[in-house]
Amino acid sequence: MKYRLVTPGPSMAPAETLLALARPVRHHRTPENKSLTAEAISLLKQVFCTKYDVVIFASSGTGAMEAAVSNIVRPGEKAVVLSAGKWGERWAELCKTYQANLIELKADYGKVVTPHRVEAVLREHPDVVAVYAQLSETSTGVEHDLAAIGQAIRRTPSLFVVDGISGVGAVECRTDDWGIDLLAVGSQKALMMPPGLAFLSVSEKAKQVMESRPAPPAYYFDLQKYLRKAAENDTPYTPAHTLIAAQVESLRMLLNVGMETVWRQTRAMSRAMLAAAGALDLRPFAERPTAGLTVLSVPEGVDGAAWPKLLESKYGVKVAGGQGSLKNKVIRIAHMGYIDAIDVVGVVAALEWSLADLGRPVDFGAGVAAATRILAEEFVSRD
Amino acid sequence: MKYRLVTPGPSMAPAETLLALARPVRHHRTPENKSLTAEAISLLKQVFCTKYDVVIFASSGTGAMEAAVSNIVRPGEKAVVLSAGKWGERWAELCKTYQANLIELKADYGKVVTPHRVEAVLREHPDVVAVYAQLSETSTGVEHDLAAIGQAIRRTPSLFVVDGISGVGAVECRTDDWGIDLLAVGSQKALMMPPGLAFLSVSEKAKQVMESRPAPPAYYFDLQKYLRKAAENDTPYTPAHTLIAAQVESLRMLLNVGMETVWRQTRAMSRAMLAAAGALDLRPFAERPTAGLTVLSVPEGVDGAAWPKLLESKYGVKVAGGQGSLKNKVIRIAHMGYIDAIDVVGVVAALEWSLADLGRPVDFGAGVAAATRILAEEFVSRD
Repeated sequence: MKYRLVTPGPSMAPAETLLALARPVRHHRTPENKSLTAEAISLLKQVFCTKYDVVIFASSGTGAMEAAVSNIVRPGEKAVVLSAGKWGERWAELCKTYQANLIELKADYGKVVTPHRVEAVLREHPDVVAVYAQLSETSTGVEHDLAAIGQAIRRTPSLFVVDGISGVGAVECRTDDWGIDLLAVGSQKALMMPPGLAFLSVSEKAKQVMESRPAPPAYYFDLQKYLRKAAENDTPYTPAHTLIAAQVESLRMLLNVGMETVWRQTRAMSRAMLAAAGALDLRPFAERPTAGLTVLSVPEGVDGAAWPKLLESKYGVKVAGGQGSLKNKVIRIAHMGYIDAIDVVGVVAALEWSLADLGRPVDFGAGVAAATRILAEEFVSRD
Repeated sequence: MKYRLVTPGPSMAPAETLLALARPVRHHRTPENKSLTAEAISLLKQVFCTKYDVVIFASSGTGAMEAAVSNIVRPGEKAVVLSAGKWGERWAELCKTYQANLIELKADYGKVVTPHRVEAVLREHPDVVAVYAQLSETSTGVEHDLAAIGQAIRRTPSLFVVDGISGVGAVECRTDDWGIDLLAVGSQKALMMPPGLAFLSVSEKAKQVMESRPAPPAYYFDLQKYLRKAAENDTPYTPAHTLIAAQVESLRMLLNVGMETVWRQTRAMSRAMLAAAGALDLRPFAERPTAGLTVLSVPEGVDGAAWPKLLESKYGVKVAGGQGSLKNKVIRIAHMGYIDAIDVVGVVAALEWSLADLGRPVDFGAGVAAATRILAEEFVSRD
């Protein structure tokens, strides 16, 4: 049985990238490796839409998130966190770990935190050091309006810190235009790589904040060390250079398509999934769905634990279930990374068959037809 | 862009098989390699549904076809060929090369040769040495009724020789039950491997015919040498042992599913493609379509050269066009090997989009819905 990984990380990786991982290991302190690192940084900047520095960590995405807290907020300083799901809560946990004076802007699961609330809290607390948010809150599938939130923040001394781990590379993210000062990204989601690398972009404003303060309580994730070494196309500690070489393959593929096109195609896949859901009488969980992910409420009468299990065991389609309080209440289907419109139509067919397996009456073909119609709008040329 | 190979050979191969090809090369004259060859032969017998011997050639499928002619028919002897397309014509060319007295049973492209015609020719010519046919005539997509044809042949001294290169491993083929004496198969179609290996099963009746005659005009393809060596789990010339090791991986996968299930699923994919074609007002070219392949006539108003090119360049879906006199008149879409129902639905979506690209009015969703409904009959359990 074919296995199709459509979880919001890790995602499928192209053969070219996986084959790069199979190349013999060479030494890492070489001129060739400096060129490789230089190319990786250059490509990452293009994908992230930033002219500022990007550093590479051998870590999971959480490492980059930790660096974006420990290097910025000192004990007792104010940090605002947009908390609308598990990943917003991770920002809050990190802020607590580093003893920030935490101001949480909470939203119910499935809802967004509005730009208006961010504006209001910054007006009330002009001494906020940083505002932490998600590009895609992967646990609920929502997308905050980061462009508008960035507008509100850039007029203040606060930094805008975004967890783009899940989404950057598939979902529109205009880092510099939106005033994002620190953008954390992971290799294993939209960047079409296995896990192992994390990235952080750092604006001039963020650098000035860091330079004006004493050394941070950080060693492996001491961001200034990485920035100094990145200027020499190097890393302070052993770089995961075979992963970087493979990441370069995937980044080239993304940029060959072009980010504007990738974003538009990702949005089309999202619209197709939502149309298919509508045709199958399924409800999206998110009030403002991110393009990289569709989160669907498990419908009445369907066993929410059995559904993702059956999709995997019978159809080879690996989706994610809900986390925490959403356990067995939603399923989460990614359309980011090495996935295309043809995959989306096929996955919808598997949703139809699996729902019928679980006893729900299904008008077979309704979902795939709706998805195919929407995707035709994106793909079919008209004169 | 993702690349999906849905030509009737070569077909996609699973990662497990491709990874086996990446293992270091070891020496081939070893006890380990004899065990490997023994396992390969045992698995091939199960897939081919034969209790008789199977030999392995390092060659393309045509090599096995040549062996099934040069070792059997002597100059001036009568050979019957069912000729309903390019591959039937290949049998005829081989028979001419070995100076057989060729009796061609021709059918127009898209039509089958009926069992009745085979019966009649054998009645008229009781001295026919062998009858040559295809399991799937891949150029037109037809499937002759081999079970009935075998019934007619087995009552005579003639041998029944089948080119199962395209189809065996996906399409029902009961070698012994249908009285097939020599079955030629290639690695790169339904057996989920790249090209490089060919196989030939040899019945007791075929062996007796060979043993009663002088040595054949063959060296590399001298079948009796292969049979003698196969009895020792070896080959007369250097075996392509890394290919054999990889083939074992794919054969194990097939047998884990089970041939009856594989055949049924292949037939369901064929029915789904035909239903989709009907819903999109496309006509199948074959009067009796093989399960492993759907051949569609290029509809009026659509550029038959442009269609397959666009499917590949814009959607990454590689189908085959027509051959010889069918050039630009049909497209050929395989559903054999490492392909599943989810792929089929996705490929239908690409057919819809590409037809619209080429100016044909398309009721988007009609094809995928029809395919999804048919496949639901195969996959969805009812109580």
